[in-house]
Amino acid sequence: MPFSSKPTEPIRQLLAGIRAFRARYYDRRPENMRQLVTEGQHPEVLLIGCSDSRVDPALLTMAEPGELFVVRNVANLVPPYQPDGSYHGTSAAIEYAVKSLKVSEIIVLGHAQCGGIQGLIRLRTGQKAEDDFVSPWVSIAASALDPYVGPEGSEQEKFDAERLQHTPAIIERAAVRASVENLMTFPFVREGVEAGTLHIHGWWFDLENGEMWAIHPETRMFQPVE
Amino acid sequence: MPFSSKPTEPIRQLLAGIRAFRARYYDRRPENMRQLVTEGQHPEVLLIGCSDSRVDPALLTMAEPGELFVVRNVANLVPPYQPDGSYHGTSAAIEYAVKSLKVSEIIVLGHAQCGGIQGLIRLRTGQKAEDDFVSPWVSIAASALDPYVGPEGSEQEKFDAERLQHTPAIIERAAVRASVENLMTFPFVREGVEAGTLHIHGWWFDLENGEMWAIHPETRMFQPVE
Amino acid sequence: MPFSSKPTEPIRQLLAGIRAFRARYYDRRPENMRQLVTEGQHPEVLLIGCSDSRVDPALLTMAEPGELFVVRNVANLVPPYQPDGSYHGTSAAIEYAVKSLKVSEIIVLGHAQCGGIQGLIRLRTGQKAEDDFVSPWVSIAASALDPYVGPEGSEQEKFDAERLQHTPAIIERAAVRASVENLMTFPFVREGVEAGTLHIHGWWFDLENGEMWAIHPETRMFQPVE
Amino acid sequence: MPFSSKPTEPIRQLLAGIRAFRARYYDRRPENMRQLVTEGQHPEVLLIGCSDSRVDPALLTMAEPGELFVVRNVANLVPPYQPDGSYHGTSAAIEYAVKSLKVSEIIVLGHAQCGGIQGLIRLRTGQKAEDDFVSPWVSIAASALDPYVGPEGSEQEKFDAERLQHTPAIIERAAVRASVENLMTFPFVREGVEAGTLHIHGWWFDLENGEMWAIHPETRMFQPVE
Repeated sequence: MPFSSKPTEPIRQLLAGIRAFRARYYDRRPENMRQLVTEGQHPEVLLIGCSDSRVDPALLTMAEPGELFVVRNVANLVPPYQPDGSYHGTSAAIEYAVKSLKVSEIIVLGHAQCGGIQGLIRLRTGQKAEDDFVSPWVSIAASALDPYVGPEGSEQEKFDAERLQHTPAIIERAAVRASVENLMTFPFVREGVEAGTLHIHGWWFDLENGEMWAIHPETRMFQPVE
Repeated sequence: MPFSSKPTEPIRQLLAGIRAFRARYYDRRPENMRQLVTEGQHPEVLLIGCSDSRVDPALLTMAEPGELFVVRNVANLVPPYQPDGSYHGTSAAIEYAVKSLKVSEIIVLGHAQCGGIQGLIRLRTGQKAEDDFVSPWVSIAASALDPYVGPEGSEQEKFDAERLQHTPAIIERAAVRASVENLMTFPFVREGVEAGTLHIHGWWFDLENGEMWAIHPETRMFQPVE
Repeated sequence: MPFSSKPTEPIRQLLAGIRAFRARYYDRRPENMRQLVTEGQHPEVLLIGCSDSRVDPALLTMAEPGELFVVRNVANLVPPYQPDGSYHGTSAAIEYAVKSLKVSEIIVLGHAQCGGIQGLIRLRTGQKAEDDFVSPWVSIAASALDPYVGPEGSEQEKFDAERLQHTPAIIERAAVRASVENLMTFPFVREGVEAGTLHIHGWWFDLENGEMWAIHPETRMFQPVE
Repeated sequence: MPFSSKPTEPIRQLLAGIRAFRARYYDRRPENMRQLVTEGQHPEVLLIGCSDSRVDPALLTMAEPGELFVVRNVANLVPPYQPDGSYHGTSAAIEYAVKSLKVSEIIVLGHAQCGGIQGLIRLRTGQKAEDDFVSPWVSIAASALDPYVGPEGSEQEKFDAERLQHTPAIIERAAVRASVENLMTFPFVREGVEAGTLHIHGWWFDLENGEMWAIHPETRMFQPVE
């Protein structure tokens, strides 16, 4: 039987948090939740973020319930469009957000110190990984490293492996670009973008300094948002 | 070029939220973020929740950055263990949380009014869906409906389809159970549970009343958490 | 020159908090402040609380800007009605709240571990105080101790002094009662109460347990609020 | 009997807020309150603010319980040092903060659209007021208007009355200066300032734009804080 019989301390604290949420959002100021229950959700934004506990989209943007439709996976990756009938959780969420909820904004939110991207760097520079899912998953962005890593087995590859371990931001951002490009392979995304009803944003959060960077629409380079 | 040149209103507001986050977490009370940057993340909890904008795990539990490692997908589903080398985003996050971060708790958090589960009910009762990803994805929990739906094409099936549209909570909870069972097919999850170092929780949030329900460890029935 | 030339750490942090406030209330969600600026304040509640840093009315009640008109002084005292032309800060605030803002509720909010009431107990039991203002100020509630303290200079008084140091809650609540009674000496307060347009509440916050107590309208005894 | 028998809507909401506070500060994250209960309060800052519901010191500075010792009265005024044994609430709080709590900072926080200052302007320009307490109280700062208002009964006085109704900020700030000067008449304040252990700050909050202004330590002029 997988269930523990007595709440552990972390669970006890989360349940206290839920009591506070109920007192705050259902009793103290019920308007917002009441409307969300009656009328359903109408978020304008789909945010694709990382599972990392330090980069919570709602906290980071001071969102309220109802504002952000959120996908979170390891390394905030978007796979390419592959309608093959198998389980594609991220693609399902993108489809639901764009076709059912008709969001007007999609944000891919990367960040510094990403463990998934560290795994990708190791993987792409020839270091073995012993896992079932993380490596295949992060390999979605493997080609993003092409400009930064020498040929397989070369001296340059070893050198780059070393270098990138210490400057992962370049890869974290390249992976955001790759996800943005994969987004555009979804026909319903491309249509919305071309019709001007859907806007795509590539962001990267500098965890050390608390600064957000975004892909500039013209230069297409990452720049700090003022 | 997929990028819009001027921030739309929702984006402008999110950027204002980020300024508030920075002022709050980096300037006003920097201790927490500073530690999370220096020492990395050490969350105790993996939470698998829905992308629905109304059920944000951090808001709902009053979490702070660093506390929850979060996966969010449509209908908070866990697929079965399938280490076949293809893209399994949710499984990758579970693997990373359990093996690398060594979380002690896994919460599967379902909720009322779940659009993904509505899709599953339609799908499972013979109504055609025109989508590429949502239907295959939610079919992860299809067998959870078996006790509640008559044989394919039967009169009972039609009746059940109608009925379940109006009482989806029973299916939303059955889907949480299915995900909890799928979790146990992951060898590293099962090991942790059997060793007593990992605890699994099935929760369902009553959006109308703000009450959390949980699978009781002994009766295994959903009950409101006091 | 009384001004320091470089912000100290506490000031630096408050200024960071103000930046967060501006980003949150002026940029992220400007509606509330915009309305309060355009239409002026219309609070329904006057709260008379203690200056104690642990019992902040806005935090304690999760208030937003515009909701509470607040007086804070040592021991949350209301002096009797004395329209003698001298400086009566608390009385001025009561007058402004009732006559100009037309609040419908007045709350006198006392609390456990009140330093001002400790001073009052010492004062009332014959212990000398070396201060210019605190003792005269808290003596507003001196008569509230009459039922609990023996005659001046008596053995009983010594005994009571000792006892009350360890059970100050009884005096903290008696002082709230005294302030409520003083409130009723203000003609414009009495009129509102008698007309049914103004309601008075006597509260006491149990700092140790986080529980609020209130004077019950019928029994007039302090009871925990459900 | 002054107590209403059934909670009105504003009271019901405040009680819900208190439930949220308890869940948040006593159950979810109890460390801070537990320490404040065990060790008592040790605020570093005394803030003297206005009762105005729109300028709540804790919200404005994102303070937590325990950080700010707060006096709030009409127009955030400090009377001059008058140790005459009568009721001086603000002076008592200053004395308690400086002598018992040994705060290192005193902030006088004024703000735009101050109703108390409007009353002072009317009073000082010959308009009758029908009140018992507000006019005597705000007259604490009456001399602050001397540079801005012509002689009593003069044409210039009428002109200035009209002008100042539309530019009250100049008087709001002059009143902050007056309070800062009155603070320095308290011997224990002056001692602390001269010893360098106590710092005084004169602030004014621009309610329209969300900007804080402060008296510059050298020029002594009000300037926006970066």
